[in-house]
Amino acid sequence: MMKRRIVILAEGRLDVFSAKTAVGVIRYRKEEVIAIIDRFNAGKDLISIIGIGEGIPIVSNIQELLHLNPTTLLIGIAPPGGILPADWRNHITDALRNKLHIMSGLHTHLSDDLEFCVLAQEHRVKIFDIRKPPENIPIGTGKAQETKALRILTVGSDCNIGKMLTSIEITNAAKKRGINACFVATGQTGIMIEGSGIAVDHVLSDFISGAAEKLVLDRAHYSLLSIEGQGSITHPAYSGVTLGLLHGSAPQGLILCHQPARKTLRHYSNFPIIPLPHLIKLYEDLARPVYPCKVLGISLNCLGISDHDALQEIQRVEEETKLPVTDPIKFGVDKFLDVIQPLLS
Amino acid sequence: MMKRRIVILAEGRLDVFSAKTAVGVIRYRKEEVIAIIDRFNAGKDLISIIGIGEGIPIVSNIQELLHLNPTTLLIGIAPPGGILPADWRNHITDALRNKLHIMSGLHTHLSDDLEFCVLAQEHRVKIFDIRKPPENIPIGTGKAQETKALRILTVGSDCNIGKMLTSIEITNAAKKRGINACFVATGQTGIMIEGSGIAVDHVLSDFISGAAEKLVLDRAHYSLLSIEGQGSITHPAYSGVTLGLLHGSAPQGLILCHQPARKTLRHYSNFPIIPLPHLIKLYEDLARPVYPCKVLGISLNCLGISDHDALQEIQRVEEETKLPVTDPIKFGVDKFLDVIQPLLS
Repeated sequence: MMKRRIVILAEGRLDVFSAKTAVGVIRYRKEEVIAIIDRFNAGKDLISIIGIGEGIPIVSNIQELLHLNPTTLLIGIAPPGGILPADWRNHITDALRNKLHIMSGLHTHLSDDLEFCVLAQEHRVKIFDIRKPPENIPIGTGKAQETKALRILTVGSDCNIGKMLTSIEITNAAKKRGINACFVATGQTGIMIEGSGIAVDHVLSDFISGAAEKLVLDRAHYSLLSIEGQGSITHPAYSGVTLGLLHGSAPQGLILCHQPARKTLRHYSNFPIIPLPHLIKLYEDLARPVYPCKVLGISLNCLGISDHDALQEIQRVEEETKLPVTDPIKFGVDKFLDVIQPLLS
Repeated sequence: MMKRRIVILAEGRLDVFSAKTAVGVIRYRKEEVIAIIDRFNAGKDLISIIGIGEGIPIVSNIQELLHLNPTTLLIGIAPPGGILPADWRNHITDALRNKLHIMSGLHTHLSDDLEFCVLAQEHRVKIFDIRKPPENIPIGTGKAQETKALRILTVGSDCNIGKMLTSIEITNAAKKRGINACFVATGQTGIMIEGSGIAVDHVLSDFISGAAEKLVLDRAHYSLLSIEGQGSITHPAYSGVTLGLLHGSAPQGLILCHQPARKTLRHYSNFPIIPLPHLIKLYEDLARPVYPCKVLGISLNCLGISDHDALQEIQRVEEETKLPVTDPIKFGVDKFLDVIQPLLS
């Protein structure tokens, strides 16, 4: 397979939260990313905007980067509802006309769009809708709990708070310790990074647990499965996905992800985030009737806080929860591995 | 609209649990049902098999009942996974050739089947896939809680335990008391009975809460919404649907449905049903962070138990839970209405 040379479309949404997919791909697949399209930030330094991506140019349109031989236009956002911003159509048709493949994780399948479809055929390129699930996902059976792999699932106090990042960091740290670990992607960005997985928020709701179970059973030969969590058990829109994933993947351990600065749910300011000890109890109470598990650690997203303040926050949460706490980006996840490794059979 | 004259296909699955859809439609739309197809029970008395449906003939095939002028063949099952039994194809093609419409609530859309589709066109009849959701279901916003209607949701200790029946009985009893009540169907059988609703287990999982919320917002002008529950919060396959429905519909009160004889989940014998007080607490703890609610009563499915034993069971559960308990079929739901009515604004 030809090496991918990815251009990420993030126009008008280039910040750490809105361009979640862009940021994830840049963080973990930087070697494949050759440019960002965002006319509002063209010419600026990417690292000054999202804190990573040094040296990746920001341009206004496809034409400006054709000399870099791009192969793929990647849709860099994961908006609520998963709809394509209307003003992005031109960038996509432009990319197709210049023989770029399209990679999208939106709920709206770009491959179902007649104009895109015709252009893709005409220019012999493909549209990859990452969120399309495989055929024939089964109904959950509860069998994930019988696999020998240690299953660690990230859960959260909210969406978009660091679950995917924490799961990837745990995988990478485990591999460094010689553990046969696998990152199990359950969302669009994770799938783009890992190259496999199922977007569990895009299967028919009767099959959420079945999809999570399939992900585990297909990877049962690993020693450690570090499973990407979704949503939050207290989220008014996405709690169903969270619980289906919890029961379907039957983890032995959870890592709870939280952002100290966040007091209410993002985009849902009427909904406060409940205290961490309550949240821990709720996750454990919910898991117990299907397969018991424990919260093993807290992953804090201390974005925008100094290292000094982050350490104070970490200490406060360690006292509050009596669990190991870290910020994976600032301080790594060794604390988590120290409690996970002894659980390996 | 021409009056429907429904034939229900239930071949080889004609019992109270397997033919859940058939039983529900016969119970609440008996006047429209002219016959059952099941060659294994042809000629027998329907009431002796499923306890209801006196006078409805059981026949072996469509031919035997053409003289009754059927208009519609209804697929009478709701199997796990929602797939059409292979040996039912001939009955369906036979029905189409005899100009019957098809009504199905399977996950598998019969209208996507090429053979069925061609036959339906040729014979100018329609295939209604009841589980197909409406277009453009939104992401949940948490707004259901702002509606003035009193929202009562049934929840369960398991699937297939009496949630739909309880919600319909509450609706009917409320109407008798002069309350402007509406049954809110969330599953295939409920939709066939009510003629409206959304099968929340057949929407993309990111949209479960949004679908539940839409059902409530579209019916906000009623005084009482009696919302059909789905699955169970402790079910390894369907808990995601249950929680999405709970958070999306934001009920003020729950009625917990249970079958005393059932000790483990149906089809999932490794999973015990947890004690009712624990289950009540779990549902209330889960609802609280999004919208607080209380379990208001327990609906017992005492199928196969004598009235005397059922009363003993009811008394035992009343002592255990300190809540009003009844079997809707044996003793009606007045006990529930007595606690629901004072909550109406």
